[in-house]
Amino acid sequence: MEMEQMNKVVGDEEKERDVKVGMKRKLRYTELFIRLLTLILSLAAAIILGLDKQTKVVPITLVSTLPPINVPVTAKYHYLSAFTYFVVANAIACSYGGVSLILTLANKGRKNGCLAKAIIMLDLIMVAVLASANGAAAAVGYIGHEGNKHVRWNKVCNVFGRFCNQVLAAVGVSLLGSLLLIFLVMLAVLKVQNKH
Amino acid sequence: MEMEQMNKVVGDEEKERDVKVGMKRKLRYTELFIRLLTLILSLAAAIILGLDKQTKVVPITLVSTLPPINVPVTAKYHYLSAFTYFVVANAIACSYGGVSLILTLANKGRKNGCLAKAIIMLDLIMVAVLASANGAAAAVGYIGHEGNKHVRWNKVCNVFGRFCNQVLAAVGVSLLGSLLLIFLVMLAVLKVQNKH
Repeated sequence: MEMEQMNKVVGDEEKERDVKVGMKRKLRYTELFIRLLTLILSLAAAIILGLDKQTKVVPITLVSTLPPINVPVTAKYHYLSAFTYFVVANAIACSYGGVSLILTLANKGRKNGCLAKAIIMLDLIMVAVLASANGAAAAVGYIGHEGNKHVRWNKVCNVFGRFCNQVLAAVGVSLLGSLLLIFLVMLAVLKVQNKH
Repeated sequence: MEMEQMNKVVGDEEKERDVKVGMKRKLRYTELFIRLLTLILSLAAAIILGLDKQTKVVPITLVSTLPPINVPVTAKYHYLSAFTYFVVANAIACSYGGVSLILTLANKGRKNGCLAKAIIMLDLIMVAVLASANGAAAAVGYIGHEGNKHVRWNKVCNVFGRFCNQVLAAVGVSLLGSLLLIFLVMLAVLKVQNKH
């Protein structure tokens, strides 16, 4: 009778341990999957805006007494500092995504080492960098789309429509990436708190 | 002899506990101080840009055959969406700073409750919001300062110099606030990890 009870207790403990190990593994796979997704999204955002280019022939009046001259004008990301910052920030986030993926895979056995802490810190810094890049690109894109009569900045998206749509897509993709990164930090905070 | 040794062991344990309690208290005061500082900085940033206003008389040519007319032009934060977002984001960060300060004070006795977790999550979200607002205001401010010949947006800071300087000051103060908030999240992650 006692033996049976003991067996039952041992069995329950084993089951509990199995559930814990299973949950840990699931969390780990979720983390790795989100890291991979963040990497892909920031790479996509950098490529979408980095390769964004549109050339249009625009009539420009040089002298008011002469008819306007048709000049081909090109829109590229590096003409605006905010877009350059956006592409660089996403490229950095993508590279960091690769490094953090490898480090997380390498850190499999150990619990809570300095490496795990460092990864959370760097995730956090990357959240701030990506958020500021998204804010900058969205702000400039908005002025390009709407124009601003107070400072007399004309809208340019009526001319470079495709370029502007690609900017919008890049900002959307990058925003998704940074939201996933925020989720990753939250997961790490919760995981760390529940682990002990 | 044994009694002496036992007393020594107990004394050492007490000392260790005292050191731990002292460190915990120090960390707590640091956290509260940083929260207060973040609140003040985001309030300052919102006020600096929110009250920023400059009026200048600018000659405007309506008809090319007539001489230019002198028109008073005013620069205000809400003429540009990015600046409005910046003021609103900093006002939200300031209000949140007040709430989180009260909640942290109220959460004194308990360890690691849902409240502590929620505060870290909200800190993190606030980091992202402030970073995007800083990025947006800095990007628009940069164009205002430098202009951009590719999209033919003229610089406005040569006319509204004081306004632009105040924008720069507001972005700087808000940046400092968001860096402190990042430090706060890092501190929370480290604290949680060391506590157990």
